[in-house]
Amino acid sequence: MEKQNILKRNQNNPTNGTYKNELHQLFSQKKINYKGRGMGLEEDLNKSNEFYRQKKIAFIYKKPTPIKLVKVDYPSRQNKITGVKIKEAYFESPSTTDYNGVYQGKYIDFEAKETKNKTSFPLENIHIHQINHLRNITECGGIGFLIVRFLVQKETYLLKATDFFNYLETESRKSIPYSYFQEKGYKIEESMFPRLDYLKIVDKMIGGI
Amino acid sequence: MEKQNILKRNQNNPTNGTYKNELHQLFSQKKINYKGRGMGLEEDLNKSNEFYRQKKIAFIYKKPTPIKLVKVDYPSRQNKITGVKIKEAYFESPSTTDYNGVYQGKYIDFEAKETKNKTSFPLENIHIHQINHLRNITECGGIGFLIVRFLVQKETYLLKATDFFNYLETESRKSIPYSYFQEKGYKIEESMFPRLDYLKIVDKMIGGI
Repeated sequence: MEKQNILKRNQNNPTNGTYKNELHQLFSQKKINYKGRGMGLEEDLNKSNEFYRQKKIAFIYKKPTPIKLVKVDYPSRQNKITGVKIKEAYFESPSTTDYNGVYQGKYIDFEAKETKNKTSFPLENIHIHQINHLRNITECGGIGFLIVRFLVQKETYLLKATDFFNYLETESRKSIPYSYFQEKGYKIEESMFPRLDYLKIVDKMIGGI
Repeated sequence: MEKQNILKRNQNNPTNGTYKNELHQLFSQKKINYKGRGMGLEEDLNKSNEFYRQKKIAFIYKKPTPIKLVKVDYPSRQNKITGVKIKEAYFESPSTTDYNGVYQGKYIDFEAKETKNKTSFPLENIHIHQINHLRNITECGGIGFLIVRFLVQKETYLLKATDFFNYLETESRKSIPYSYFQEKGYKIEESMFPRLDYLKIVDKMIGGI
């Protein structure tokens, strides 16, 4: 019930990206499958990154969500096993994207989002400081992109940061149409290992697409 | 008082790196200066990275400490302001190093530690999974290193991951002598802006030292 309430709030208030993070945290910590279909995009990416790491292809991790500590209990000498207990804390809005790491010596950085929207990807899903971060790391020579899954179409696209910025600079709409992803984005193949082979597209980016 | 106890525990049990993290978190969250001399190495690095970001030289961040959530309270509709409240959580041991980011398109990754020891840097300060992580990202073409501050000498050294691995492979000691840092490491200059100009040494690493 709790989870459905958060989902509802998240739908009603899509600008509040922290709810999404909290939800992800909750699911990932308690290992609950939402409606029996796993965690969706986040789980697929985590599994793919695990596969890349095992094969020593790339080392890309999801960053932990930042937390603001308010009350912390330190264990007594007798009770060291449980460790330090956090008794009051709040989620903070991340100042960077969720994923980063190394591939072929290059710096890789991206944000990943799902949308239930059929015709477009609402831009409220991406925080302004995440857009700035993508711009900064791209200008610094890093490889930046978005990974967006359209849940209705069951399709996942990689959109290069530069194509993302081009859209933001030329369009005033508060969402990116699905057709823009079809035209400018790269559909990510799904398989068993890895679930989402997004580095295949990064290879092309390194090659100069 | 609490803080001194943790410090003491940390000294008595240097293998337990989580205490150090907790301490850092505590200080960084509450912005308390320990004995009026700031947070030491961590604060110096954060300020240096802030400087590099402002000048758009490099985008390198400290990763948040991972937290294991146990109990979370969701706000009622009437009380949305406070947000989701974490009521029980514990610090987790990080599986990667603390700092990573991009400089000149290259992936940068390092761990930073202080030691009160005058003659050597105890290896218990670095977790085995952090060593493995440094090895992995180095093999994947990333630029990896340690930054170690000797508090007695008031000197901070950058030690390339390859020189760190060389030591581990040839020596059986449980610490790296100060003299090894003098011989193989690179002393990081201290100034006002940035406080620790470690990228000057990374420049040399890119150049092939």
